[in-house]
Amino acid sequence: MNSRRNFLQQLTASVIAFNLPAYSYAGRNIFFNEMNDGPVLRVAIMGLGSYGTRVAEAMQSCSKAKLTGLISGTPSKIKTWQSKYGIPDKNCYNYENFDAIKNNPDIDAVYIITPNALHHDQVIRVAKAGKHVICEKPMALNAKEGQEMIDACKQANVQLLVGYRMHFEAKTLEIIRMRREGEFGKILFFQGLCGFTIGDPNQWRLNRQLAGGGSMMDIGIYAVNGARYMIGEEPLWVTAQETKTNPTKFKEGVDETIQFQFGFPGGAVASCLSTYTMNNLDRFFLNGENGFAELQPSTGYGPIKGRTNKGELNQPHITHQTVQMDEMAGIILQGKKPIIPVDGEEALKDLKIIDAIYLAAKTGKKVDLNL
Amino acid sequence: MNSRRNFLQQLTASVIAFNLPAYSYAGRNIFFNEMNDGPVLRVAIMGLGSYGTRVAEAMQSCSKAKLTGLISGTPSKIKTWQSKYGIPDKNCYNYENFDAIKNNPDIDAVYIITPNALHHDQVIRVAKAGKHVICEKPMALNAKEGQEMIDACKQANVQLLVGYRMHFEAKTLEIIRMRREGEFGKILFFQGLCGFTIGDPNQWRLNRQLAGGGSMMDIGIYAVNGARYMIGEEPLWVTAQETKTNPTKFKEGVDETIQFQFGFPGGAVASCLSTYTMNNLDRFFLNGENGFAELQPSTGYGPIKGRTNKGELNQPHITHQTVQMDEMAGIILQGKKPIIPVDGEEALKDLKIIDAIYLAAKTGKKVDLNL
Repeated sequence: MNSRRNFLQQLTASVIAFNLPAYSYAGRNIFFNEMNDGPVLRVAIMGLGSYGTRVAEAMQSCSKAKLTGLISGTPSKIKTWQSKYGIPDKNCYNYENFDAIKNNPDIDAVYIITPNALHHDQVIRVAKAGKHVICEKPMALNAKEGQEMIDACKQANVQLLVGYRMHFEAKTLEIIRMRREGEFGKILFFQGLCGFTIGDPNQWRLNRQLAGGGSMMDIGIYAVNGARYMIGEEPLWVTAQETKTNPTKFKEGVDETIQFQFGFPGGAVASCLSTYTMNNLDRFFLNGENGFAELQPSTGYGPIKGRTNKGELNQPHITHQTVQMDEMAGIILQGKKPIIPVDGEEALKDLKIIDAIYLAAKTGKKVDLNL
Repeated sequence: MNSRRNFLQQLTASVIAFNLPAYSYAGRNIFFNEMNDGPVLRVAIMGLGSYGTRVAEAMQSCSKAKLTGLISGTPSKIKTWQSKYGIPDKNCYNYENFDAIKNNPDIDAVYIITPNALHHDQVIRVAKAGKHVICEKPMALNAKEGQEMIDACKQANVQLLVGYRMHFEAKTLEIIRMRREGEFGKILFFQGLCGFTIGDPNQWRLNRQLAGGGSMMDIGIYAVNGARYMIGEEPLWVTAQETKTNPTKFKEGVDETIQFQFGFPGGAVASCLSTYTMNNLDRFFLNGENGFAELQPSTGYGPIKGRTNKGELNQPHITHQTVQMDEMAGIILQGKKPIIPVDGEEALKDLKIIDAIYLAAKTGKKVDLNL
């Protein structure tokens, strides 16, 4: 009874604090947005780094998602964010105490935006705290970890989504619509070139323990995932070739450049590049029997630019993370089905492919996939 | 003396027939063009098929090369061409008697435009007849044949050039100038996507005996050669993956689609595609530390279109085969050095790479090159 009273007190407080009308649905309290035209997902961000900052900014324009909590190991960051976004002390946590989020009725979900190696344990802890999880990609360091995370979320009866923001991008979705409606004919080829020149050699992305790899984990995954959603099939096999020009900057286990290729059941092939040594390389090309599509830039923060054999793509640019968080609110709170999945199973496929790419690059052999 | 008199008679006849002033240089008679501003290369075309027709048409605009002879197995073609180009009977040959070209003072060189499998023997026969050879690419079915052809031409003291028309294309050369002058910085990546949908399943290009392979011999060679001239280095290794969706059309030994990758000494990598199953796929992309270049179309008959990080390329289009033949006249008659080689040694490198691509595709293993 005491915990229930606490819950109701906190509920009232949060409704006042965020001015949100509330109702109960499927055993959970659901809060409507200020325009009262749909439920709102109240999100804590874990990891207040540069991408977390970008997400928080973008969420200010969301109508269905709202930043209501913070998790960080850096008290000064918490303070700055609190005053900027009006987050009360009781919704702020550090990496030791965030399991207590379980008892916080202001938070529906946690968006984990931390170094890759931390995702596995953090997702499982959030799941055990009974909150939905949004995890930045790559979801984990490998498929084994990914499966454990999926299992933990299933067991805890929380949803696990992964930050595939391109799955909600308008020009990308238009190409997918065209492909699905047969406008390109039989799909034959995909090319994804993804890379940038990485700066500070001391950042976590260049630390194998924290990143779990190199460019492939960070930027190559866009080509892996892009090959799948652009072609609309799961690859049957992968081959890969690694090249390292700077072994000082890119240490053992941290890939600088990997070329990789896929074969698909329908006969299409894909040719991709992942690199930390080329400036703003961001190109997708899809070729079909009767038409083509290209995006360039294809996965940057936008605006995405693209054209097909029918002409320029003119869908308006909306900040990707704004769209992503509003759409994810719909998925979590209303059971909406995204056009391309963004759940743990989707992410697990990418991890299985990345495992296979690393194996193929190491052994020099074609690796069969079973997705 | 009799043969010398015959020679002089024929010489006079040819000077009258083509209205060309003549002089003797380096033991050979050299004929000036009508504007008298340079020597003219008098060429017989061997193989009056569709590409031969294109070359002959283009040569009508040449100032330094002139069509003076025909070699064909089809008398009706000979007749049509004779009347169109004013070729006298004595300059027309078939595949049985063309060794007699040795005694024809109207012909300096033979341009061999026949199915790939015939090049080896034909080049050697032309060389033995003492005429310079221009051979369409691929020069031969494999490197072994290519080496024999080079040796035969060397022994006969005739030049052997190969129909690399892109080596004279203005936009291509501008990119190469920029790359050589460091305008792109360190070169990191080349992508060459070359393909088209091949029609008639009964044509010689889909006959292993005549073509020596499939798309790789015909269109993939543009990506092989392009990777080398765009990057400006010779590849160290190659990997390759073959995909066949239509084994009826593309029989054993006739490749439909091959993806292949190179690594270069400077650390650059290349990712290429050769296919007979995609419409008008014709894209080059060169990426450097400080800039990029792209051509699209990149190797078609033109106009080539392209841009670099500095803007559109605006070099005017001139029919490729016209430029090629005028430039080849300068190489053969005046010892001009082309910006990118077009000799047998250049072609041999492509053949060694193609041999390695087929081996890599078959074994699934990386193949080291030693070029």
